[in-house]
Amino acid sequence: MKAVVYNGPRDVSVKDVPDAKIERPTDVLVKITSTNICGSDLHMYEGRTNFEKGRVFGHENLGKVVEIGSAVDRIKIGDMVCLPFNIGCGFCRNCESGLTAFCLTVNPDPKMAGAAYGFAGMGPFNGGQAEYLRVPYGDFNCLKLPEDALEKEDDYVMVSDIFPTGWHATELAGVQPSDSVVVYGAGPVGLMAAYSATLKNASQVMIVDRHPDRLRLAEQIGVIPIDDSKSDPVEQVLAMTNGRGADKGCECVGYQAHDPQGHEHPNMTMNNLVKSVKFTGGIGVVGIFLPQDPGGPDQLSKQGEIPFDMGLFWIKGQHIGTGQANVKDYNRQLRDLIHADKAKPSFIVSHRLPLDKASEAYQHFDARDDGWTKVVLKSSHTP
Amino acid sequence: MKAVVYNGPRDVSVKDVPDAKIERPTDVLVKITSTNICGSDLHMYEGRTNFEKGRVFGHENLGKVVEIGSAVDRIKIGDMVCLPFNIGCGFCRNCESGLTAFCLTVNPDPKMAGAAYGFAGMGPFNGGQAEYLRVPYGDFNCLKLPEDALEKEDDYVMVSDIFPTGWHATELAGVQPSDSVVVYGAGPVGLMAAYSATLKNASQVMIVDRHPDRLRLAEQIGVIPIDDSKSDPVEQVLAMTNGRGADKGCECVGYQAHDPQGHEHPNMTMNNLVKSVKFTGGIGVVGIFLPQDPGGPDQLSKQGEIPFDMGLFWIKGQHIGTGQANVKDYNRQLRDLIHADKAKPSFIVSHRLPLDKASEAYQHFDARDDGWTKVVLKSSHTP
Amino acid sequence: MKAVVYNGPRDVSVKDVPDAKIERPTDVLVKITSTNICGSDLHMYEGRTNFEKGRVFGHENLGKVVEIGSAVDRIKIGDMVCLPFNIGCGFCRNCESGLTAFCLTVNPDPKMAGAAYGFAGMGPFNGGQAEYLRVPYGDFNCLKLPEDALEKEDDYVMVSDIFPTGWHATELAGVQPSDSVVVYGAGPVGLMAAYSATLKNASQVMIVDRHPDRLRLAEQIGVIPIDDSKSDPVEQVLAMTNGRGADKGCECVGYQAHDPQGHEHPNMTMNNLVKSVKFTGGIGVVGIFLPQDPGGPDQLSKQGEIPFDMGLFWIKGQHIGTGQANVKDYNRQLRDLIHADKAKPSFIVSHRLPLDKASEAYQHFDARDDGWTKVVLKSSHTP
Amino acid sequence: MKAVVYNGPRDVSVKDVPDAKIERPTDVLVKITSTNICGSDLHMYEGRTNFEKGRVFGHENLGKVVEIGSAVDRIKIGDMVCLPFNIGCGFCRNCESGLTAFCLTVNPDPKMAGAAYGFAGMGPFNGGQAEYLRVPYGDFNCLKLPEDALEKEDDYVMVSDIFPTGWHATELAGVQPSDSVVVYGAGPVGLMAAYSATLKNASQVMIVDRHPDRLRLAEQIGVIPIDDSKSDPVEQVLAMTNGRGADKGCECVGYQAHDPQGHEHPNMTMNNLVKSVKFTGGIGVVGIFLPQDPGGPDQLSKQGEIPFDMGLFWIKGQHIGTGQANVKDYNRQLRDLIHADKAKPSFIVSHRLPLDKASEAYQHFDARDDGWTKVVLKSSHTP
Repeated sequence: MKAVVYNGPRDVSVKDVPDAKIERPTDVLVKITSTNICGSDLHMYEGRTNFEKGRVFGHENLGKVVEIGSAVDRIKIGDMVCLPFNIGCGFCRNCESGLTAFCLTVNPDPKMAGAAYGFAGMGPFNGGQAEYLRVPYGDFNCLKLPEDALEKEDDYVMVSDIFPTGWHATELAGVQPSDSVVVYGAGPVGLMAAYSATLKNASQVMIVDRHPDRLRLAEQIGVIPIDDSKSDPVEQVLAMTNGRGADKGCECVGYQAHDPQGHEHPNMTMNNLVKSVKFTGGIGVVGIFLPQDPGGPDQLSKQGEIPFDMGLFWIKGQHIGTGQANVKDYNRQLRDLIHADKAKPSFIVSHRLPLDKASEAYQHFDARDDGWTKVVLKSSHTP
Repeated sequence: MKAVVYNGPRDVSVKDVPDAKIERPTDVLVKITSTNICGSDLHMYEGRTNFEKGRVFGHENLGKVVEIGSAVDRIKIGDMVCLPFNIGCGFCRNCESGLTAFCLTVNPDPKMAGAAYGFAGMGPFNGGQAEYLRVPYGDFNCLKLPEDALEKEDDYVMVSDIFPTGWHATELAGVQPSDSVVVYGAGPVGLMAAYSATLKNASQVMIVDRHPDRLRLAEQIGVIPIDDSKSDPVEQVLAMTNGRGADKGCECVGYQAHDPQGHEHPNMTMNNLVKSVKFTGGIGVVGIFLPQDPGGPDQLSKQGEIPFDMGLFWIKGQHIGTGQANVKDYNRQLRDLIHADKAKPSFIVSHRLPLDKASEAYQHFDARDDGWTKVVLKSSHTP
Repeated sequence: MKAVVYNGPRDVSVKDVPDAKIERPTDVLVKITSTNICGSDLHMYEGRTNFEKGRVFGHENLGKVVEIGSAVDRIKIGDMVCLPFNIGCGFCRNCESGLTAFCLTVNPDPKMAGAAYGFAGMGPFNGGQAEYLRVPYGDFNCLKLPEDALEKEDDYVMVSDIFPTGWHATELAGVQPSDSVVVYGAGPVGLMAAYSATLKNASQVMIVDRHPDRLRLAEQIGVIPIDDSKSDPVEQVLAMTNGRGADKGCECVGYQAHDPQGHEHPNMTMNNLVKSVKFTGGIGVVGIFLPQDPGGPDQLSKQGEIPFDMGLFWIKGQHIGTGQANVKDYNRQLRDLIHADKAKPSFIVSHRLPLDKASEAYQHFDARDDGWTKVVLKSSHTP
Repeated sequence: MKAVVYNGPRDVSVKDVPDAKIERPTDVLVKITSTNICGSDLHMYEGRTNFEKGRVFGHENLGKVVEIGSAVDRIKIGDMVCLPFNIGCGFCRNCESGLTAFCLTVNPDPKMAGAAYGFAGMGPFNGGQAEYLRVPYGDFNCLKLPEDALEKEDDYVMVSDIFPTGWHATELAGVQPSDSVVVYGAGPVGLMAAYSATLKNASQVMIVDRHPDRLRLAEQIGVIPIDDSKSDPVEQVLAMTNGRGADKGCECVGYQAHDPQGHEHPNMTMNNLVKSVKFTGGIGVVGIFLPQDPGGPDQLSKQGEIPFDMGLFWIKGQHIGTGQANVKDYNRQLRDLIHADKAKPSFIVSHRLPLDKASEAYQHFDARDDGWTKVVLKSSHTP
């Protein structure tokens, strides 16, 4: 089958690879119809992780079930399903508690918890930027889609990762109706976090970025754009919140945070959040930070540390929640909002391209080229 | 009246100061009978804060009501009361939500939230290491004690601060029955955090310190002592938790954390906690960190920042809660446990001394002299 | 001053009564500008409670502060304020925990908890359907309104009771984004419950009633109207939820529930809710039920009991929360939503009348005359 | 294999039945070593349910894994396991949210949710009062026991049902440290509820019953016994709580509640709880109530309804949670408490008998014969 293969830093291509297939009685085999390129793919694409050459990318996947293992009871051939980017077993201590992003079974590395399709450090699983995808523990991991699956495919595919991840940021921060919320980073996940805050009826949602296309998109969904290339974002947030700071904040950038001039400062968004959020406020961090970053800008960041404003954080009595989204905690709920026409996350999609165009899509998206906010690859679109 | 006055770094003395008195119709005047020296007094005592010379220390106070303002309805003359160290108004946005440590009314500094008796940066209020104490918003701030107040006075006085603060650490961390819990720091607050975890029926409670008297005390209440002067505490915690790490962790040291050789490393306990706590675990931080620390060991710490292991923290999907305890959230509950003989926090008291001996008590406590775990000053003990 | 006085069953009139005035240093005196007639006023109006003749009605009040007691610190003369219908002290065990509807201080009856303005069994306080209102513990009980107070007065006055009460129903039921929700009763509180569910982004909100004007209003805010005079509402709810039942349900009718023919069945809505809500679902009850109802239709109801479908309730593993709304838990939040143009509860207002017209307004509202959904009395409108 | 078979009302016998065996690749086969008789078995034993003749009893099971299906990954042959009485699939909407007592997959009746071993209305599954038990979805349903499984077998077997069910009662009621708690019913589940409250460090735990052996047992674990054959239990609870009522209450009796003279009043415990619990307090109901009870004492109870004190319940603003325990929510936690010697639920066991003695054990237990508090059947004890 065809798949998007990593050849090395900033080099992917569509190649023939061995077919995905049923390996265990609990597996499900899915013919992929939509599969997104994610911001976290770029960390790997840029060579800033230990992602192995030859592996297949793609953890935001949707498609049609074409084969099921002998122990699969719920999922049927022909079902349209959306796959959470993290893979859980459903029966370990963490999965049982809904912490499916930290499954203790699926990742063979005993020092790690959690697995994902086509992801550095998250187990040996191939990605879904391909014609077919093997889904382990299919009854647990497949989200069945309703009869409008085809019609709203670009919405539902967002439920695999960025919509629940954005939602997770607001959950970690503790966003409640009427809150003021500031989001750092208006990439796809940041936009989804801001969108989630509006869906929860926050009174005021602000987003900090500097790319005009992203800020425009934010404005279209009723979010206040703050351009940090024009003035200090902290001061702007304080000015808009009577000097008190936002009730809640979301970090949607991660360790490659950089200033408008392009210099990396891994602590930039975290320290700005501490300053931008009120006393006793909450901060949700879904931007990725890594324990080691050999390509980091200085010694501290190479070992995964940041100069963090602990004093101010403590005096303000704030709290921080972090980590990958437990997609299954939210995906039924978000699917139902889409089905009921209460949410339409596909507003974010800028490009729908055939799988063949993956290489060029990666290039544009990585360069943050104007207008390339989100790419959906249509890998084999005849479901 | 007599009071413990700050004369400058490592210099306190008992002096005559103007009498505390009713100033507002909502005030209550309390004749102090027990008032503790707290570990956070030491930051001020050592001159590591901006505490003003001439001010009176003392935020862990208990006594008898001797006068009430004209608008006081609930509190009566003669009531034995325990005073939360933080002062709240009862009607601001934060007090209403139980966030009394972050009262928006009482502290005149518009950039701060929260006030306390005799505390650097927490408003102009005098402390209770004195004969009398003025309690603002007395109906809101006084905790009435039951008929066994005198008999259990050394227990109840702990409800003013260190018992709720230790309990708060376990709440911020999210300690549940059967959890394994590690506490860094076996000072009074750390011991109270460990004690709180045992009261919540944690399966396993570990505490990290190096002072033999403190570790002995921990052992007496069923807590596992870990001596970090003998071996790496992280490895010991991992060894005792099947390599997984503790479910929850508590920071009870703060910015003056130092290694067994006495060198300060403000990030030492935080980074050890991230390593000691499991994936998805919670960390509660009640040890004090300050936004500025002119006396800090290096440039970063002078500006209140620490090199924090953000990468590992994020990958593990942990969460951190911080800040001063909202004492009123817990003080009725803890008082009732003491009254019902279900808790006895006075196990921590090593010295009961008259107010006159304050200077020498500060000296010993500051030096961590063996056996000086907690001092109660009996300021005017004929209630 | 003029006030709406209860003369006996179905008889009110506007009379001269002694002026409201400051009685305690913590009081605030408010010149009332808007004051609503509430559905719960009707229980008293109809003589179905022990409300005393000669008392003044009115617990949904908004106005301007004209005088403050000597101990009042936060509220200033000239402030526009909205008053929660329940009166709390701010310092009892319940108020401290946010349970202000169950204040242990203000109601002199030791067997009751909670007080309200002009309300049977809720203390001696006069109501605000008058020119002036005395507000006890003014710093605690007044909600300050922003600069758009006059312009949005009909919205803000709903924050005194029915908007938070409707919101409370959804909180007690546990409504989450994407839930399906059924509300029994489309009176003002029921409509506010349904509206609250839509503000929380429920996927599907249904409301059961039989009055065409109310059902029309429901439809206008995106709620599905179910007419129980046309067919069995339980079957309709099941049909709209794939046979499973709604995720959550709200009771907004109370003990005077009656069938379309007008016969009272105090258990009707509760048993229908148990049947209409899914296994493990939640039910919030804000419709009033009384421990004694001498005018009830049968012996059971006279003693406050209903034949309740406990077997089905238990087998389904449902939960019920009840009681008057702790208005202060929600009123800042709802005020902020109105201020940010995210909520507009005044859609419910059908009539704006001068205080003088109170008698005729009560008559029409009690008769459920078509189009009389909600009356705001403009008692002295020159703030 | 041998098994305890239901022959009709008050008639069970040990008979040969077809061997339990692996039927699906996800099944696990367990050789039962300990299996309890439960109070809810008595409803079936007495013929008060539709339990079919010829079926095998037993839903409190523990044993050794002797065979596993081809899709089982976590559980190994030789593991000692404790089985939750409810059977879940692990992947339906309810199981995913931890609501395993309401699994939507396993029970073939589309109007019901939830399944159990050997239980009326809970699916076709045979019970474990037998030599072997088939466990569906074994990876999800088996709780692995640690190395002290044999030594503490009588403790661990309680984790299959009554310990988590008692714990659930306290969770539904919302028991917190320092609460006062009243439990109605000192049968095995009631004793476990009271025990759970003490493990959570309630300040005061009261239990209402009339059987001297049960009340004695309660006293041994520090619980205050209240004998309702001697005086009104409500008055006793109020007297012990300053007239306020207990903070929380637990119903552990169910629909066959009867007065000391033996007359059934299905509403007796519920209405007593409403009176015994304070304003705003919580009530957890784990005693079984049934939608139909053809053998009930009157017309109302035959159709599953009780005359419930809704008026007082509502005025007091209480809340009720109900239903079977989601055992998997608690069983790891309770296992760990036992393993750490922090809980020892076997104090309840009065009789350890071979499976052969089942008939006589049922007789004594059903008669509430003095001293027959809890029977463990040792079905094939050579693990």
